[in-house]
Amino acid sequence: MKIRVILPTIMDTFNQEVQQEFAQYVGKQVEVDVCHLDYGPASVEGEYDEALCIPNLLEKAIAAEQEGCSGVISLCFADPGVKAAREVVNIPVVGAGESSMLIASMLGKSFSVVTVLPHVIHMIENVSKTTGVNSKLASVRYVDIPVLDLVDKAKMEDALFAEMVRAIEDDKAHGLVLGCTGMLGVAASLQERLKQHGYEVPVIDPSFASAKMLESLIAMGVKQSRLTYMPPRQKWRK
Amino acid sequence: MKIRVILPTIMDTFNQEVQQEFAQYVGKQVEVDVCHLDYGPASVEGEYDEALCIPNLLEKAIAAEQEGCSGVISLCFADPGVKAAREVVNIPVVGAGESSMLIASMLGKSFSVVTVLPHVIHMIENVSKTTGVNSKLASVRYVDIPVLDLVDKAKMEDALFAEMVRAIEDDKAHGLVLGCTGMLGVAASLQERLKQHGYEVPVIDPSFASAKMLESLIAMGVKQSRLTYMPPRQKWRK
Amino acid sequence: MKIRVILPTIMDTFNQEVQQEFAQYVGKQVEVDVCHLDYGPASVEGEYDEALCIPNLLEKAIAAEQEGCSGVISLCFADPGVKAAREVVNIPVVGAGESSMLIASMLGKSFSVVTVLPHVIHMIENVSKTTGVNSKLASVRYVDIPVLDLVDKAKMEDALFAEMVRAIEDDKAHGLVLGCTGMLGVAASLQERLKQHGYEVPVIDPSFASAKMLESLIAMGVKQSRLTYMPPRQKWRK
Amino acid sequence: MKIRVILPTIMDTFNQEVQQEFAQYVGKQVEVDVCHLDYGPASVEGEYDEALCIPNLLEKAIAAEQEGCSGVISLCFADPGVKAAREVVNIPVVGAGESSMLIASMLGKSFSVVTVLPHVIHMIENVSKTTGVNSKLASVRYVDIPVLDLVDKAKMEDALFAEMVRAIEDDKAHGLVLGCTGMLGVAASLQERLKQHGYEVPVIDPSFASAKMLESLIAMGVKQSRLTYMPPRQKWRK
Amino acid sequence: MKIRVILPTIMDTFNQEVQQEFAQYVGKQVEVDVCHLDYGPASVEGEYDEALCIPNLLEKAIAAEQEGCSGVISLCFADPGVKAAREVVNIPVVGAGESSMLIASMLGKSFSVVTVLPHVIHMIENVSKTTGVNSKLASVRYVDIPVLDLVDKAKMEDALFAEMVRAIEDDKAHGLVLGCTGMLGVAASLQERLKQHGYEVPVIDPSFASAKMLESLIAMGVKQSRLTYMPPRQKWRK
Amino acid sequence: MKIRVILPTIMDTFNQEVQQEFAQYVGKQVEVDVCHLDYGPASVEGEYDEALCIPNLLEKAIAAEQEGCSGVISLCFADPGVKAAREVVNIPVVGAGESSMLIASMLGKSFSVVTVLPHVIHMIENVSKTTGVNSKLASVRYVDIPVLDLVDKAKMEDALFAEMVRAIEDDKAHGLVLGCTGMLGVAASLQERLKQHGYEVPVIDPSFASAKMLESLIAMGVKQSRLTYMPPRQKWRK
Repeated sequence: MKIRVILPTIMDTFNQEVQQEFAQYVGKQVEVDVCHLDYGPASVEGEYDEALCIPNLLEKAIAAEQEGCSGVISLCFADPGVKAAREVVNIPVVGAGESSMLIASMLGKSFSVVTVLPHVIHMIENVSKTTGVNSKLASVRYVDIPVLDLVDKAKMEDALFAEMVRAIEDDKAHGLVLGCTGMLGVAASLQERLKQHGYEVPVIDPSFASAKMLESLIAMGVKQSRLTYMPPRQKWRK
Repeated sequence: MKIRVILPTIMDTFNQEVQQEFAQYVGKQVEVDVCHLDYGPASVEGEYDEALCIPNLLEKAIAAEQEGCSGVISLCFADPGVKAAREVVNIPVVGAGESSMLIASMLGKSFSVVTVLPHVIHMIENVSKTTGVNSKLASVRYVDIPVLDLVDKAKMEDALFAEMVRAIEDDKAHGLVLGCTGMLGVAASLQERLKQHGYEVPVIDPSFASAKMLESLIAMGVKQSRLTYMPPRQKWRK
Repeated sequence: MKIRVILPTIMDTFNQEVQQEFAQYVGKQVEVDVCHLDYGPASVEGEYDEALCIPNLLEKAIAAEQEGCSGVISLCFADPGVKAAREVVNIPVVGAGESSMLIASMLGKSFSVVTVLPHVIHMIENVSKTTGVNSKLASVRYVDIPVLDLVDKAKMEDALFAEMVRAIEDDKAHGLVLGCTGMLGVAASLQERLKQHGYEVPVIDPSFASAKMLESLIAMGVKQSRLTYMPPRQKWRK
Repeated sequence: MKIRVILPTIMDTFNQEVQQEFAQYVGKQVEVDVCHLDYGPASVEGEYDEALCIPNLLEKAIAAEQEGCSGVISLCFADPGVKAAREVVNIPVVGAGESSMLIASMLGKSFSVVTVLPHVIHMIENVSKTTGVNSKLASVRYVDIPVLDLVDKAKMEDALFAEMVRAIEDDKAHGLVLGCTGMLGVAASLQERLKQHGYEVPVIDPSFASAKMLESLIAMGVKQSRLTYMPPRQKWRK
Repeated sequence: MKIRVILPTIMDTFNQEVQQEFAQYVGKQVEVDVCHLDYGPASVEGEYDEALCIPNLLEKAIAAEQEGCSGVISLCFADPGVKAAREVVNIPVVGAGESSMLIASMLGKSFSVVTVLPHVIHMIENVSKTTGVNSKLASVRYVDIPVLDLVDKAKMEDALFAEMVRAIEDDKAHGLVLGCTGMLGVAASLQERLKQHGYEVPVIDPSFASAKMLESLIAMGVKQSRLTYMPPRQKWRK
Repeated sequence: MKIRVILPTIMDTFNQEVQQEFAQYVGKQVEVDVCHLDYGPASVEGEYDEALCIPNLLEKAIAAEQEGCSGVISLCFADPGVKAAREVVNIPVVGAGESSMLIASMLGKSFSVVTVLPHVIHMIENVSKTTGVNSKLASVRYVDIPVLDLVDKAKMEDALFAEMVRAIEDDKAHGLVLGCTGMLGVAASLQERLKQHGYEVPVIDPSFASAKMLESLIAMGVKQSRLTYMPPRQKWRK
């Protein structure tokens, strides 16, 4: 079984790390393919970037199905193209934002998302509204670090920790979600660090969550509803 | 003063009619420019179409500002590209869906939207959720006629009338919104026909609503919040 | 075309200023009539005042229709008598509160209202609930200045500016609405002042918003739903 | 201890019946005073009637306090003047609509209101929204009988029974509220009749509910919050 | 007429005080029986305690009906066993949490609950959600005093007062509810103390509220809906 | 790795089938232990049954942790004891109802649950409210077959199919959830049968969903928040 992880940007910076991380997320029988875009933005940090990344992402999703993949992940917290891709392929499509917020909804009375920049706050709030879990969302906070600067992991972790404590203390968050798929490999240590400071709360990695959610859907033999996500009608497009 | 109406499809079928209609909607001092896309879908009837129409729509919006327009309308009920365009231009951007649903929220305790195809029901519901008026939305119904077949106006009107009566009787709608901007020029006669059948309810044309909403914003000197719709950061895009 | 603006108080202090402002809000073909009440309160600063102003406001609304007006505005942020007036006239009736909050809902992910006194906070919250946009309302703040003391415009503006910054910083408001129609002529300068302080957000004048909303409804040929606002049955009243 | 029941109409038709019913509702130590209006409408069947009944109702509420009453009931399902009266008296004020809907919220997963005429549906829905129990309201139905025709009790009961069954079967109501205080003395028999037909659900009489709610508040020594319902400021009113 | 108050713990510490208090809450014709559990927890301070107290509480409720009681109160703010007891008896069952929150919903635009420990915050929030008044709940605060330490009334009152002021100032609560039935006999003095500090708000004692609510239901002849709370089917249980 | 599936009834009827099914749900490295209760009800078909099953279920959950299990499932759609168990163990605890409703929330704009009996409708609605996905729940329907009669799989499937079609056609459900964990092994065939009738929608088996959700949590190294689910304080319990 093979799944395709689409990084919705033109950068190949994260490909190898994503590949390695996902290999650890999923069962051994699952092959993880990672790809990035041929055209689009260098990172998704707003509605404009999101709009530009979707057309090629959809082509990549269609290719994934044609190449025998059993499911597709749009690896960005804003879930770019997830709804559109669901119309054009017959395999399950999941986003990292929705996957992690749904799981967080189960683990406590409320959760906060800590993301990169203020540009995407309303996008994340809107994902929570269309997914239906907005009543559990305590707040969306940000570390004010652009996606491509997340490579400085120590700086990122410190900034995340500070905002997480504010989310718990000020916004009454009882769970935490990393609000960018570029925040790879820090969930466990942040969870541990919070615990040492007296906050025993789940910290959810959206990449990990999307991998497990997709794996679950494939195992269960379910995918997006065709009553919501109908196949596009034949028509002229250029 | 000049406003730009962007038809988010590659068809020029509606340009002239839209031009003529909008000229009647707005004040005499307002010049209405209508344009369609260079690349994209022939009609917007789902998430996939929407995704494909946005990149060129954004270019058209940027061009509109550069050419001195005071505001931009994305003329499709699903409001494609409205949020992204708000990031990239400094003039107000409005969508036909949000404009008409906001006005409908004021005129009665509830309203229904009657659109073209079942493919777009969840998209319209999601617009109502992110705009914040979902508690007033009684239902989204459809006439099962593709956009490009709306040229048969008599057929369209009969189908709209039938669904509108069902919306009133079955879904307790107290107001009605035409759910496709291709449904041009029929709101007044449908309102009259419903009145003759004992239903004195407002029927809102989304094109007309978007024109008045944009004209109002320009007059008031307000536009989208830069705290929600932040300008995209400089970065590599291809 | 003529519209009637009803000031729901017995004071004629604001008539001339309102007349002049509204003349600038609407198109040249629109004649603006301003009237105040024969009996009622000197200002509307609570439920009690509101109750006392409505009976004569309704008479004024009926008179407006009989005298050939095409629409009526109840010029107070609490929208006194708007729902009742909609039952008794066949021309559109709009309130300043609902008009401005609906427009604010479109321009950003959230908005705050800054009003005069704490007495009216729950009234404004209730207008947001019955209009259906309460999920977008971040907060209602107040400057603690009675309506009739708003004549000191410098003091009012400073107080408004201070609360607006708090609304943005503390309540995460992304748009602002002046919460009293007595706050005339300050929206543009407050919007500019906020921009100079780094907050590029829309500041909505409720009088202006009501004028444009009414003008839009008249142009579109729509008015309140008769399924919600049914004409009163004939009966004995004294 | 004395309570004042204000019938917010100019009719004295119901005074004696209301007096007798309320005497049975409350404890023996409670004296029930019933009064009607000096000026206003003959019945409250819409927003217009409501607006006209409030000014005198407020005078009656103030008089009640001055005459030593311990609490006031506005005896109409739309709760006319309740909010305004709360500002002007220092004794608890309750409405029949809010009282009965709150109690119904406790007794089952949902409830429906069956009222007189379609004119008041949105008013009742709005009371549920501002009281905060709208998520429990399954529907508002009506028997299409004007208030003053409710004297034909057999006809009223049959019509109520028919709509109640529809509310249960079609709207999934698990509790029922009589939606007009003119529907006196039929709750118990309707509850019994429904039970005989297999529907063992509570049927709540709004007059009875308001009496018990007021009695409870007085006993508990609580009244409306002065942070929500502030006393009106001194000012010129005529 | 006799009502049964079930203290859902194995402690008899509060029995006498509860008995005396309730005798003052209800009319003279009402006999108040107080009982505690034979097995279960010493106090209810979390989901685990709640689960352990319910089985015997249900036996006590069944016994109450068999012994001729007209109604049952589960005297704990988390309303343990209320829903289950409603299935197994044919007399009204009420909880202290739901009763007090419903009454608070009527008295102001919002209310806060001040409870004992952080363990029960989400339980109280969940009661507000299933009762349907969560939109009126400003916050749940706690004094950080275990139930069995509430015997130090001076300490409890001071702690409650401090949190109540925070609820008003920080959370915009316009009413207050004591969030533990162990907080007996302090509501009136706290209400007075808040008033002296300028906060004229209702302070609701949940025990008192439950007594009046049950008395009201019995008087009105209504009880829980059998469509929601169906009698358990016959089956093997051990 | 070992997980414990607790059937919250005293029947061992389903143990073997559950064991076999779960072995297929999870990865090969996961050992599935199934146990039933020593005391409690024969099935969970209401609040009363639920209350009776929880005490022993909690003992079983504690034993599971002590015996080295990595996670616990409460295998009943009403999620009995899930919240309480989360307090007393340090391994993740999931319920079948919340797991399946969360996954359903992702796959379409709405979903319906089809359960066994009307007794549990409000319980399922309440789970959706406390989990936070109630806005996606189109309806809860039932086949009117007691849990222990579900052994007639052909009858169950036919009844489920009929209600599922009604959920889609009448309630606008775009996804379906089996509302009882006794409905084992029929999801796939029902999904196929619906597809053949033109309804290509996901049908979610709650047992399968709970297995995948637990497996995901364990893999991700997250569990319930200790800010929501605090360990019970030491105290006397009998």
